[in-house]
Amino acid sequence: MAFVTTAPVLAANDDIKATNFLLDNGMEVVVIPDNRAPIVTHMVWYKIGSADEPPGKSGIAHFVEHLMFKAATINHAAGEFDRAVAEIGGSHNAFTSQDYTAFYETVAPPALEQMMSFEADRMFNLSITDDDIKTERDVIIEERRSRIDNDPQAVLGEAVDATLWQNQPYRIPVIGWMQEMEKLDWTDARAFYDKYYTPNNAVLVVAGDVAPETVKALAEKTYGTVPAAPGLTRIRPVEPGQNTKRTVTLTDARVSVPNFSTHWVVPSYRTAERGEAEALDLLAEILGGGTRSRLYQQLVVKQGIAAEAGAHFEGTMLDASYFSIHGSPRGDAKLADIEAAVDAEIARIARDGVTSDELDKAKDRYVRSVIFAHDQQDSIASMYGSTLATGGNLKDVEERPDRIRKVTADQVKAVAARYLVSDHSTTGYLLPLLPNTEN
Amino acid sequence: MAFVTTAPVLAANDDIKATNFLLDNGMEVVVIPDNRAPIVTHMVWYKIGSADEPPGKSGIAHFVEHLMFKAATINHAAGEFDRAVAEIGGSHNAFTSQDYTAFYETVAPPALEQMMSFEADRMFNLSITDDDIKTERDVIIEERRSRIDNDPQAVLGEAVDATLWQNQPYRIPVIGWMQEMEKLDWTDARAFYDKYYTPNNAVLVVAGDVAPETVKALAEKTYGTVPAAPGLTRIRPVEPGQNTKRTVTLTDARVSVPNFSTHWVVPSYRTAERGEAEALDLLAEILGGGTRSRLYQQLVVKQGIAAEAGAHFEGTMLDASYFSIHGSPRGDAKLADIEAAVDAEIARIARDGVTSDELDKAKDRYVRSVIFAHDQQDSIASMYGSTLATGGNLKDVEERPDRIRKVTADQVKAVAARYLVSDHSTTGYLLPLLPNTEN
Repeated sequence: MAFVTTAPVLAANDDIKATNFLLDNGMEVVVIPDNRAPIVTHMVWYKIGSADEPPGKSGIAHFVEHLMFKAATINHAAGEFDRAVAEIGGSHNAFTSQDYTAFYETVAPPALEQMMSFEADRMFNLSITDDDIKTERDVIIEERRSRIDNDPQAVLGEAVDATLWQNQPYRIPVIGWMQEMEKLDWTDARAFYDKYYTPNNAVLVVAGDVAPETVKALAEKTYGTVPAAPGLTRIRPVEPGQNTKRTVTLTDARVSVPNFSTHWVVPSYRTAERGEAEALDLLAEILGGGTRSRLYQQLVVKQGIAAEAGAHFEGTMLDASYFSIHGSPRGDAKLADIEAAVDAEIARIARDGVTSDELDKAKDRYVRSVIFAHDQQDSIASMYGSTLATGGNLKDVEERPDRIRKVTADQVKAVAARYLVSDHSTTGYLLPLLPNTEN
Repeated sequence: MAFVTTAPVLAANDDIKATNFLLDNGMEVVVIPDNRAPIVTHMVWYKIGSADEPPGKSGIAHFVEHLMFKAATINHAAGEFDRAVAEIGGSHNAFTSQDYTAFYETVAPPALEQMMSFEADRMFNLSITDDDIKTERDVIIEERRSRIDNDPQAVLGEAVDATLWQNQPYRIPVIGWMQEMEKLDWTDARAFYDKYYTPNNAVLVVAGDVAPETVKALAEKTYGTVPAAPGLTRIRPVEPGQNTKRTVTLTDARVSVPNFSTHWVVPSYRTAERGEAEALDLLAEILGGGTRSRLYQQLVVKQGIAAEAGAHFEGTMLDASYFSIHGSPRGDAKLADIEAAVDAEIARIARDGVTSDELDKAKDRYVRSVIFAHDQQDSIASMYGSTLATGGNLKDVEERPDRIRKVTADQVKAVAARYLVSDHSTTGYLLPLLPNTEN
């Protein structure tokens, strides 16, 4: 029961071959074989997130995720699903992002049918009461207070998102704006649930020691009984081209070490021209992926001006996404020193490109991280789930390593030059409250 | 046929006594006596603006305003209304803001009935064709190109608005985002027109040499025949509290002299606690209203560092509004010098308040500007129209001068201290593209 603002790392290797099929009511099912241990991961991904919320109802997607755990259904008392998972020694949870809401359980294979039965039941039969609303609204409000409002970095992050995105709904925090969360009511929750919690708006992902035919039979028996709802189209306001350089500064007494993070709007895997998202992933790896990266080597190791420095590309999004670089000064260094050094590194890649050696190593690291992710059943299930919930298909997951390997040095240089333009960036600064300090 | 981003200055004096009444279909009518000349101003204000547009449909309010002139109706061919106004030597126009869309004609009193008949007709009988959509969409797109995209100051202004407003829909440009304007179609226009162009969503303002009883009889005969539509509630997403200091910078080769403008979110007359909006109006006058103001005297006259400097408070808005200060350097002065001087003036008022002498003079200037506005029939009609279209009533217009006169020096000091906080401001910088320039 959490809200996430980033999608899981998305990738796969050639060993995994998932199968998929549709139920008659339009629900997509993906089965991922994994026979290493007698466990199964069962996930339902709804193609609904905070970026789909009606205006003025921010937080409703995450609120309904909570209500899915809190409320009774026509067939089960409140808490019964929880207890059933606990009794069989399983684990379960859920999360909400801008683009999707997912529920999952990890259990022994014989319990799969029971899990599917419970999930199918709460997809259609949820009985939300006024009391559920009151109790759970207090919970999400408290969650906002503790996770966002008490954390200057999180408060800054919200303002940076809302400054980076001037039209696209990623502007709105997943947890919701407090003044809107406080007003969410039964009608809002019920309307959202009725509209979006439908089999034709969901993807079932089952990973583990279970045959596709078994999953199919069970899915037809459980989810197959849930009626399809009117087709949903997912139309999102689009971000206009960015013409300006923007900054957002939060000065707070609770901050001890300043930091900055610069964001650029870039395409996601779904919106990119072929090869650009892969090149952005490798650019993030080369520029700021760990201690071997250019930024770390230059700023932390060689110049010694930064305590940390890194880069990130968020690829698994339905709409345009972002590329970010962050850093924090060490010793007497100023944020401006680090920013200047970052600008120099970006300019160097945009002008001279990357070497074939560093490109190869970045590809290796990227593909290794995919293999590492395969080791965890919920990670591989999440790769499929998040990809399918953001407009991708099985091939997008399974061909990712090959597509990454095909990226050329010129492509990496091109995306750096095209997207990482200082005059079209948005930078957040977190500053300590000190008298007469220059940062 | 224009889009405006600011409301007319709103005020009145004791001489004007308007009367108002409701038609049976819910349309409000205001009659303002003005017998100085044989002319009459006829205005219809719809309580619909760009801030009411559906997500992804920016520009639709302004587009429909255009279509009101372009399309035929069931009773009149396209262009007939135009020709009728021209034949009698009248003038007419329209404008769209965030909160309202207004249409008006200025004619001789005998033509009033004809104007009302035409306006009532296009309130209900508009016949929009596919051809109208194509032609007029090209017109608004060209309007955007010439007024916004070819003007760096306007491009910056859009980004500042979208940075200042992170949730409230004043974020969205009245003209619309280009990528959304290009997709506006017949269905969008028709739905918007059908929903919002209704008598119970409109205010009729008639100013001039005509008796209220005459207006009433004519209104019943014309607008009175238009059926009421289902009640509309105007619920807008609310802005969260601002915790950060934000900047937006546009660097452009077409800019010769740099400038800046700093915005703060403040209450409007509709959302303010009693007295605060009046105090903000006087603060704007004292700080930056013309050549007698503190900023002008200090920055332009005494220090000679600014070519211009001023302040503005936008009070006539449905939701929270803004207070702004702008300036431009002279000679070798830098933007930073002017900003520092502005900060010092704000700090001085927040700490020491204003003198009774400058407060009295500011009140006099403010009330004189109201009297000046009364001299123009369309200005006084607009005061009533804009106030009523943003949640106010006749008393709000007519008592304004008295309420302004009652503001104390302490109230002005209090709003400066409460709202003009540097750490919670949004500043736009327009910079020339010069090699190695520090601004």
